Amino acid sequence: MVPTKKSAVLVDGVILNGPTTDAKAGEKFVEEAWRLIMEEVVLKATDVNEKVCEWQPPEQLKQLLDLEMRDTGEPHHRLLELCRDVIRYSVKTNHPRFFNQLYAGLDYYSLVARFMTEALNPSVYTYEVSPVFLLVEEAVLKKMIEFIGWKEGDGIFNPGGSVSNMYAMNLARYKYCPEIKEKGLSGLPRLILFTSAECHYSMKKAASFLGIGTENTCFVETDGRGKMIPEELEKQIWQARKQASWGGSALMSRKHRWLLQGIHRADSVAWNPHKMLMAGIQCCALLVKDKSDLLKKCYSAKASYLFQQDKFYDVSYDTGDKSIQCSRRADAFKFWMTWKALGTLGLEERVNRALALSRYLVEEIKKREGFKLLIEPEYANICFWYIPPSLREMEEGPEFWEKLNLVAPAIKERMMKKGSLMLGYQPHRGKVNFFRQVVISPQVSREDMDFLLDEIDLLGRDM
Amino acid sequence: MVPTKKSAVLVDGVILNGPTTDAKAGEKFVEEAWRLIMEEVVLKATDVNEKVCEWQPPEQLKQLLDLEMRDTGEPHHRLLELCRDVIRYSVKTNHPRFFNQLYAGLDYYSLVARFMTEALNPSVYTYEVSPVFLLVEEAVLKKMIEFIGWKEGDGIFNPGGSVSNMYAMNLARYKYCPEIKEKGLSGLPRLILFTSAECHYSMKKAASFLGIGTENTCFVETDGRGKMIPEELEKQIWQARKQASWGGSALMSRKHRWLLQGIHRADSVAWNPHKMLMAGIQCCALLVKDKSDLLKKCYSAKASYLFQQDKFYDVSYDTGDKSIQCSRRADAFKFWMTWKALGTLGLEERVNRALALSRYLVEEIKKREGFKLLIEPEYANICFWYIPPSLREMEEGPEFWEKLNLVAPAIKERMMKKGSLMLGYQPHRGKVNFFRQVVISPQVSREDMDFLLDEIDLLGRDM
Repeated sequence: MVPTKKSAVLVDGVILNGPTTDAKAGEKFVEEAWRLIMEEVVLKATDVNEKVCEWQPPEQLKQLLDLEMRDTGEPHHRLLELCRDVIRYSVKTNHPRFFNQLYAGLDYYSLVARFMTEALNPSVYTYEVSPVFLLVEEAVLKKMIEFIGWKEGDGIFNPGGSVSNMYAMNLARYKYCPEIKEKGLSGLPRLILFTSAECHYSMKKAASFLGIGTENTCFVETDGRGKMIPEELEKQIWQARKQASWGGSALMSRKHRWLLQGIHRADSVAWNPHKMLMAGIQCCALLVKDKSDLLKKCYSAKASYLFQQDKFYDVSYDTGDKSIQCSRRADAFKFWMTWKALGTLGLEERVNRALALSRYLVEEIKKREGFKLLIEPEYANICFWYIPPSLREMEEGPEFWEKLNLVAPAIKERMMKKGSLMLGYQPHRGKVNFFRQVVISPQVSREDMDFLLDEIDLLGRDM
Repeated sequence: MVPTKKSAVLVDGVILNGPTTDAKAGEKFVEEAWRLIMEEVVLKATDVNEKVCEWQPPEQLKQLLDLEMRDTGEPHHRLLELCRDVIRYSVKTNHPRFFNQLYAGLDYYSLVARFMTEALNPSVYTYEVSPVFLLVEEAVLKKMIEFIGWKEGDGIFNPGGSVSNMYAMNLARYKYCPEIKEKGLSGLPRLILFTSAECHYSMKKAASFLGIGTENTCFVETDGRGKMIPEELEKQIWQARKQASWGGSALMSRKHRWLLQGIHRADSVAWNPHKMLMAGIQCCALLVKDKSDLLKKCYSAKASYLFQQDKFYDVSYDTGDKSIQCSRRADAFKFWMTWKALGTLGLEERVNRALALSRYLVEEIKKREGFKLLIEPEYANICFWYIPPSLREMEEGPEFWEKLNLVAPAIKERMMKKGSLMLGYQPHRGKVNFFRQVVISPQVSREDMDFLLDEIDLLGRDM
């Protein structure tokens, strides 16, 4: 080793002077890739004439993509080709006719915030590392709490609604049995989880993960209210939790917030702005009414290398100790950016429009031959069957349902291979496979609703 | 409602024809913001002459930022000003002199993959929605498993090392006591968690979250190996888990992989490529040796609206049911892109260089007056004290340690306010506050190591 200041220093055969990254070449690559992303994703995202997906079965797609990681790296032009392939074969979730999930569409403001987050690469645990993003999270949580109708509260952005449900369930357990944090559940009487029969599947995952056990879950029927008040209360609390994670955006609309009437009575709410508010995967907050610092008391582990108490600033801003994570993404920021850009009124308008489009679709379904609503929807998910001509005269007996069960998967296969449209199907509690349409994005118009029904009919009329 | 094809359709006072997004204006905004991100973040990231941070205390920063979300939205030029402020007051984690955490630096390839992920907005649960990213995840997991030294295995990308630890702990519990998934822990004998006395704080969080209880955690000493083989075995398994999440990148280096000797004997490994491999927050895989589909058996909840079994393709590619999450980010993709770009040899070179730079710093610390190593480091985190001139002649008694304890926080405050450098400090198991330097990024050079020691001395020599 030659440790004089001017000469090259060699340790273990590695030259240590100067950075080894070729910044100029790297920046040029980022610029070129950016152009590709802008043209192939952002500009085409809203173009209804493009395909939603370019279907390839797994084994073929593996052949088409060069997935292998090798000993030596690939040159920039080759990487750009790979990027082009990745875009080509990816589903365009931004497309106006992607209705497959509870998220869709392109929000330019959220997208900018997401690019900024990726470029700045923050991890939101301490104020010293993430001053802006911690304050943004605080501001967004405060506003969300206001919309729920709580006077005060606390909350944390985390990786999705399922994780929020786990947080909430564990917080409830901690609040009423704080000793479980130290002692565990062993040797204690069984804890019973009351949840809605219509609850999200993450409730079962949480029951098993937290050591409660899936068999100790009571599913309270959603139709016909129970008489016993305690169960009823439990039911309402858990129902509010479950609905909030998808329906939370209704809170933004003065016209539709009655759908969540009584949500302010819940102790905690999971709200996913990555769904109808289009903040991008992932953006999810768990909000808790309690102001006794329950999140911190429940989750704190006081890691001395992050949460030193002798820092020179107010360490109550180091909110990372409220989290079950260590590194944590700045997910609040993208929601904040969209909110700033559109204002509360702009967000409200979006929600109103999505629900008006849903209403339009429902009325069309009722009018058209061969389409049948499962249930009058309350929100933006519309469940319906398409009954092909060959089944229209058949009696609604076992044979009818058996045959109808095959229709949605077959139409889905055709639409995926054509790439014209994507929406989901599913069976549910004795109801055979039906389509589930979800309206979210402001890129979607009434023409897309018409197209949806026309296309399903076109793809299925020979069945 | 006027449902004829050509005329405007009005529902609930909302016009439903045509998309409502002004795509042209949105695209222009994205272009302008992109230019800002490129200039203010990407280009300045590697510029050692820029400040690492622009310190403002929380209350002042709130005044400087316009955080309030209002009823009406802000115009684009105002949003761009906000973006500029967000960048200005954010810590530049890409800066060559950001040494504060276990991640740092800018990788151009990972960055491009991250921009693509944000633009495409995938959620990785089913092949139909996320065909490319599921195959990429499969390819990356396979390669990581190969580097651990397992013949086969399984794994899942998830939101960070802490969550990985929870996954692993719960999988171990499921493997040996599968009935806990349904029955829960209540009424069972206590489960004891053996973990390293030096384990990451997430182990305690996990013990409490999973219902095991923090008091049922046995911390096995790390110095002086125990004699009883079962404990020793437990210790090694958990130690490997704990180290892997930060030290996993050593597996990329033929020179340094001996540091993780025996890792192939572990049942599971948490590996965070967002740390030394610079994939960006967050990129973390939990890898399990078991090939009996343990992840799926343990976590599956079989949601009928996502994981339909009558799909037209091979549904074993719908890996989302292995996850505790529902929506899940495509975190494997950014690691894949970097690996493609640099090749295994390029990644190896980065790891070797980071460890050589660490070695250089250690030797400099040993040579310089006023610097003292806590312990000879094995990896890229170097713990040391700076002893200011006033303490150098003092006997190492209680008064000395008490005074030394105040030095690192005071120097940290000065460096943050100056913005010249960021590195962490902490106390640990009876050792008073010391600096913890971490070397990661290829933007860092030997000149930065010299600067680090010069700057600490400059900031602290009057203490």
